[in-house]
Amino acid sequence: MNNYYALVMAGGSGTRFWPLSRKRLPKQFLRLKDGYSSLIQMTHTRLKNTFSPDNIYYVASAEYSKLIKNEIREIDESNIIVEPLPKNTAPAIGLSAAMIHKRDEDAVIAVMPSDHFIQNETLFSEVLKVGYKVAANDNIVTIGITPDRPETGFGYIKKGAELETIDGISVNGVEAFIEKPNRQKAIEYLSTGRYLWNAGIFIFTAKKILSEMGKLMPETLDTIFKVRDLIGKDPKKAEELFSTISSISIDYGIMEKVSGIRVIPADLKWSDVGSWGAIRDILPKDEYGNVNIGENILIDCQDCVIRSEKKTVAAIGMHSVAIIVTDDAVLVTPLEKCQDVKKVVDELDKIGKKGLI
Amino acid sequence: MNNYYALVMAGGSGTRFWPLSRKRLPKQFLRLKDGYSSLIQMTHTRLKNTFSPDNIYYVASAEYSKLIKNEIREIDESNIIVEPLPKNTAPAIGLSAAMIHKRDEDAVIAVMPSDHFIQNETLFSEVLKVGYKVAANDNIVTIGITPDRPETGFGYIKKGAELETIDGISVNGVEAFIEKPNRQKAIEYLSTGRYLWNAGIFIFTAKKILSEMGKLMPETLDTIFKVRDLIGKDPKKAEELFSTISSISIDYGIMEKVSGIRVIPADLKWSDVGSWGAIRDILPKDEYGNVNIGENILIDCQDCVIRSEKKTVAAIGMHSVAIIVTDDAVLVTPLEKCQDVKKVVDELDKIGKKGLI
Repeated sequence: MNNYYALVMAGGSGTRFWPLSRKRLPKQFLRLKDGYSSLIQMTHTRLKNTFSPDNIYYVASAEYSKLIKNEIREIDESNIIVEPLPKNTAPAIGLSAAMIHKRDEDAVIAVMPSDHFIQNETLFSEVLKVGYKVAANDNIVTIGITPDRPETGFGYIKKGAELETIDGISVNGVEAFIEKPNRQKAIEYLSTGRYLWNAGIFIFTAKKILSEMGKLMPETLDTIFKVRDLIGKDPKKAEELFSTISSISIDYGIMEKVSGIRVIPADLKWSDVGSWGAIRDILPKDEYGNVNIGENILIDCQDCVIRSEKKTVAAIGMHSVAIIVTDDAVLVTPLEKCQDVKKVVDELDKIGKKGLI
Repeated sequence: MNNYYALVMAGGSGTRFWPLSRKRLPKQFLRLKDGYSSLIQMTHTRLKNTFSPDNIYYVASAEYSKLIKNEIREIDESNIIVEPLPKNTAPAIGLSAAMIHKRDEDAVIAVMPSDHFIQNETLFSEVLKVGYKVAANDNIVTIGITPDRPETGFGYIKKGAELETIDGISVNGVEAFIEKPNRQKAIEYLSTGRYLWNAGIFIFTAKKILSEMGKLMPETLDTIFKVRDLIGKDPKKAEELFSTISSISIDYGIMEKVSGIRVIPADLKWSDVGSWGAIRDILPKDEYGNVNIGENILIDCQDCVIRSEKKTVAAIGMHSVAIIVTDDAVLVTPLEKCQDVKKVVDELDKIGKKGLI
């Protein structure tokens, strides 16, 4: 598998972990706990079970590429692909595939996010190997996560019939990629057992993805090739060209339109680490279900996430609440409302406290 | 009223306002809000409506007496009476009365706590003047606060018949001093209209209180006179002697046993500032009933007390919760459980974080 490459999407920004995550330090660079690795470091370590470091690529903005270099010391700078501008996943993946293809015409690429958590690493590694075999055969393959709850925050993949079994692992057809459902639909999806979570993990040959892109978004691909050859030579011109590309996701631009995609269903114990509530699911808890990061005192508290590594937090009688203390801010929110931190960030922006964003 | 003296009890320590109050900085020295006066400063200012600064005395431990000097710059050091040891209120008042009596044999003294809040300052001043007239006539007088809720955290005074009216203000007999009641009793007390809160404010001549003390606790009074004459000359001996005195409150030691005490009922809009909940009652609130001290962002919050003057707190969906942030600690508690901060302090003591107490 010398021609097997990982492409880690590390361009994501977001504020769902405010006040811990900031514009300058998005989620993939967060340490859930001091002494822990950052999510991107965990991703890198996980990938080394399958890929040689030389074959692991990252794609991100110039700003984040410095953070990546900092987090993953062993990475060669040439393995960090810098998007000239953020244009969503399709252009980033297209550009990366074009660059990897230039190095290795027979490249098989596994694309995935940098900021997810996978507990079952052994299975992940096995599934990636099966994915390689299927993709090498000129297929686009995705890994579909076995759902364990009627989640409305993810897209779903409706799996088709089993097409083959490789090394004891099933490979199925894909009937459809489905947008985030409402609660009722999500319950239905869970009960049928035919729907999987779309975790944004795709495996394909560079040739295949470039060829599909050439069919579905020919102008974009054309620009991507030009940009690839300008990067390093005329970055200004590269950026100028890249700016003309439409922002579009790989799901919407390619995956939902290509037929014959395959899916490997896998119970990876995966989390998108999408909220403080998800953190509670991942990290070790005390006997009352509290995640307590720091030397905090909890009295009559249940199912909370408390994180404060300098100040001592004393929480009394709190249930399912997040209390997050950083050097300049404190967040207190019920876990079920933690997506409202977006409102906090909007408000900070409005009142001009941009240093806190 | 040149012979009218205020005696402010400033020896109290406590942890009900942890993490804001500490052993070294108890409640009377707290600023509820930056830019606000401390409670003891507010007490001093309030008393200056009635007393000349030269006639305002403080009694406290040596440690706190330095803090008092710091808070109330205009006070002469000789007006701060240092208790050799904490022995509850009866010995502190006895010693103070003995000292003031030495200066002025005809002294009338109004004793009161240093850490309460009185909104109706004009009425307070008027009541103090009436109290002077009643006390000068060889009576012990107390001010009873008109209750507005069935509070179980205070002692009560059962008022007797109206004995006289001075300057339009009623003076009643006292039928009984009553310990903190249970909820049912408190509801009953409120409904009858015959019970008042005991706010610890007493007015008497120095002669009268010393004479009652002579009858009820003669050994203590004897020691107090000796200590008075030793202070400043032989502090070590004074402390040694004072250490032999029993700790006892003025209520239990004197007031509950003396007959003929009078009470002036007064609707002072008084608060003992006993908890974060009481703070909510006193300070200005936003339209949702939140007290927000600092530049904090509240989203869907109601009836909260948020205090953080350096870090920005973002609170989402919190109801009747206190969030208190200091330089080294954060407290999050429902207001109705805020008396449990005592448990936090106990826990901090147990795990050896004494710096936080």
